[in-house]
Amino acid sequence: MPEARRHLLSIADLERADVERLLAAARSFEDDSATRPLLSWRSVVNLFYESSTRTLASFELAARRLSADTSSIRAAGSSVDKGESLKDTILTLSAYDPDVIVVRHPSIGAARLVASWTDAHVVNAGDGKHEHPTQALLDLYTIERALGRLDGVHVAIVGDVLHSRVARSLVRALGLVGARATLVGPPTLLPPGIEALGCAVSSDIGAISNADVIYVLRMQRERMEDAFVPSLREYAAVWGITRERVRPGQLLMHPGPMNRGVEIDARIADCSGALVVDQVRAGLVVRMAVLADLVDDRTSAELEHSFAEPLEVS
Amino acid sequence: MPEARRHLLSIADLERADVERLLAAARSFEDDSATRPLLSWRSVVNLFYESSTRTLASFELAARRLSADTSSIRAAGSSVDKGESLKDTILTLSAYDPDVIVVRHPSIGAARLVASWTDAHVVNAGDGKHEHPTQALLDLYTIERALGRLDGVHVAIVGDVLHSRVARSLVRALGLVGARATLVGPPTLLPPGIEALGCAVSSDIGAISNADVIYVLRMQRERMEDAFVPSLREYAAVWGITRERVRPGQLLMHPGPMNRGVEIDARIADCSGALVVDQVRAGLVVRMAVLADLVDDRTSAELEHSFAEPLEVS
Amino acid sequence: MPEARRHLLSIADLERADVERLLAAARSFEDDSATRPLLSWRSVVNLFYESSTRTLASFELAARRLSADTSSIRAAGSSVDKGESLKDTILTLSAYDPDVIVVRHPSIGAARLVASWTDAHVVNAGDGKHEHPTQALLDLYTIERALGRLDGVHVAIVGDVLHSRVARSLVRALGLVGARATLVGPPTLLPPGIEALGCAVSSDIGAISNADVIYVLRMQRERMEDAFVPSLREYAAVWGITRERVRPGQLLMHPGPMNRGVEIDARIADCSGALVVDQVRAGLVVRMAVLADLVDDRTSAELEHSFAEPLEVS
Repeated sequence: MPEARRHLLSIADLERADVERLLAAARSFEDDSATRPLLSWRSVVNLFYESSTRTLASFELAARRLSADTSSIRAAGSSVDKGESLKDTILTLSAYDPDVIVVRHPSIGAARLVASWTDAHVVNAGDGKHEHPTQALLDLYTIERALGRLDGVHVAIVGDVLHSRVARSLVRALGLVGARATLVGPPTLLPPGIEALGCAVSSDIGAISNADVIYVLRMQRERMEDAFVPSLREYAAVWGITRERVRPGQLLMHPGPMNRGVEIDARIADCSGALVVDQVRAGLVVRMAVLADLVDDRTSAELEHSFAEPLEVS
Repeated sequence: MPEARRHLLSIADLERADVERLLAAARSFEDDSATRPLLSWRSVVNLFYESSTRTLASFELAARRLSADTSSIRAAGSSVDKGESLKDTILTLSAYDPDVIVVRHPSIGAARLVASWTDAHVVNAGDGKHEHPTQALLDLYTIERALGRLDGVHVAIVGDVLHSRVARSLVRALGLVGARATLVGPPTLLPPGIEALGCAVSSDIGAISNADVIYVLRMQRERMEDAFVPSLREYAAVWGITRERVRPGQLLMHPGPMNRGVEIDARIADCSGALVVDQVRAGLVVRMAVLADLVDDRTSAELEHSFAEPLEVS
Repeated sequence: MPEARRHLLSIADLERADVERLLAAARSFEDDSATRPLLSWRSVVNLFYESSTRTLASFELAARRLSADTSSIRAAGSSVDKGESLKDTILTLSAYDPDVIVVRHPSIGAARLVASWTDAHVVNAGDGKHEHPTQALLDLYTIERALGRLDGVHVAIVGDVLHSRVARSLVRALGLVGARATLVGPPTLLPPGIEALGCAVSSDIGAISNADVIYVLRMQRERMEDAFVPSLREYAAVWGITRERVRPGQLLMHPGPMNRGVEIDARIADCSGALVVDQVRAGLVVRMAVLADLVDDRTSAELEHSFAEPLEVS
């Protein structure tokens, strides 16, 4: 990330050292008996043009645990309804001098545009089917905690890769830390040329058997209407992750919300190898780390020192 | 309530001593020149699957007056829209380790299910037509403040008993404290066998004349479509509470929001015997008491001592 | 404003000294390295019956910067959906003893009715096409900062005056401080008799050329359906503010959200003479001043002293 004014727009903007610094900071936030008012007197605005429980709640909580002032604006019920342009909304919000704008938007590249219009730090919380970098970081964090390492880990990402910003960010992030990814799904849902991101590709569900982690993507019901898949029932039969398809010791991840009975079997989602709840918990500390890292203007070395010694609540 | 992990799911789970402890705690919160940060560093999540002004605002305010961190999630605009199951939503929320989840849901038994999926304390803020226990507690509180006693008080509950979680919780609560209830309404809106809860039943509006308190239930407009009542106009004529039907000294209550001109006359709702605003105010202190009681892990004796001596704001 | 219980319902209720006191207080809030917990332990409820990003966010932020406890209630998803009357909503909210209720409502006179039903201070955040007094105050503030004076300034207000509460409040406010207004727009959108407010009126777009400030009103798309204007394209051609229509040195204002390409040219809205972002920023400090002024029960002299000496964050 550039020194002068920093954003988190894409995993492609990060280097390995950035990822390692963020994961270390996230670890330091695990101890919740300590509080760190690193963002006191700072403000975080969450601007969400798509509905979300998990991501919005996670950013709100992360900001508040760092003592930031938070505001959340959803597209519904706001000036957005009156047809105000994204640019004018950002100019308006920027007039309040927020320290961070967290933005989710259905258009690819929206977060980068937002960063060009404001002096605030911008975090991309999902821009169309492009990227969702904090999801990828929390996935790395979850894998590292479960396996004790990232280097050499093999992750099979299964399902609707074509429409998935989660898959795009995760493939990039895995490559950055020495892990490898195999994308697995029906040919209609595998974007041509995706191998260029540095991953393997397969249209055989058997390809998941060698992976350390099976990462199941959400199957969106509206894809059926678009004729990408013949029916959810058929999709579940061919691509759904069932107990039979998972080897002992393999880990199971899903970005949520799950369609139990479609891309993932209802029972297996609750088994001990499933890390879905760990991912949500990781989201909190990873987003704390991202916010603190962006806002804090000390050097990385100072930061690591600061993260290492939690401030006690007096 | 069990000692280990406590919830407030139904009045049926409470004993008389529990009710008395909660009402005493609520009284101690009346003095708002004192503040009690009993829930500082604790978090309360309000998860509402039905729209609500009163109940949601009341829980939010109650939590904040105790210095809790609060988040409110409405079904609209959340992952619920994406068809996520209630169970997965609770597992997700639980990953953030909330201390209390307050849940309103259209299905009977939803709150009890939620309690089985989370380590948080659960408060039922309404589950279908089953129960709404904090409403019943605030009603007891309001009656006791108005009449100076609960024992022997006679409450006539008038209207759509069939669809009313308020009526079910209130009948149980009145029975617990030695008061008695008569349910009054058209036969189509009186559930068969409801006497088993320990109340009298009448389809004669004249039955309200002996009561100390007339408790008017909300008439929901959609009931007409279901043919439970022929028309709102006719319902109002036969069952609406007018000045003529109330004796001097009788008290009037309503859980809100009122349909003035339907179940209650527009003018009488503002008379001095009407306790509607008292009920709202009671909701705040009673919910403070419920939250504090669930979260606090001290013994009841210690709690009563704590409630008795408000902490002064320094 | 009366001494006993004060509201901000209309510019017509203010005297010049009130405006000057509020603008002076707003100036004192510009230094955001200082914080003033003037509203700590006080609560502000925002009750919005119309959608809004700017105004709601501005009031929320203003209240929080003064350390008030804030709650925001939107009509959608609240008891309002169940047909509760405005009066009952206010009685309910008032049961919680809020210090200030900020209300936006589509009906003319709604804020004044609210003030008659509650002990809280009431701020009118827009009532139908009647008034929007905090917008007018922030506009005065913006003009004074840009030009160094208000006395003798000439403001041309262009567009849909008929439906604009912004125009009504601004004309009154300009008159109060010795500035003058000319209303400019198509005859169908100029209310007959509006000169009575003390302004000039013109249906010639050339009338803007003499103004120090061109204040562009929002053109609402729904006006086309009502046949007030033949088409947005034609409206833009005749009344849209383009680079050609603005003289060097003239200032440009707009209450937002802008319809770029309709009432205002897309490019000119970003030029240096456009004060749109300044208006948003002014909204924050002006609303802080309004809230502090209403709640604070000290004398004006004490207040000015207090505003003059910001409390430093310790």
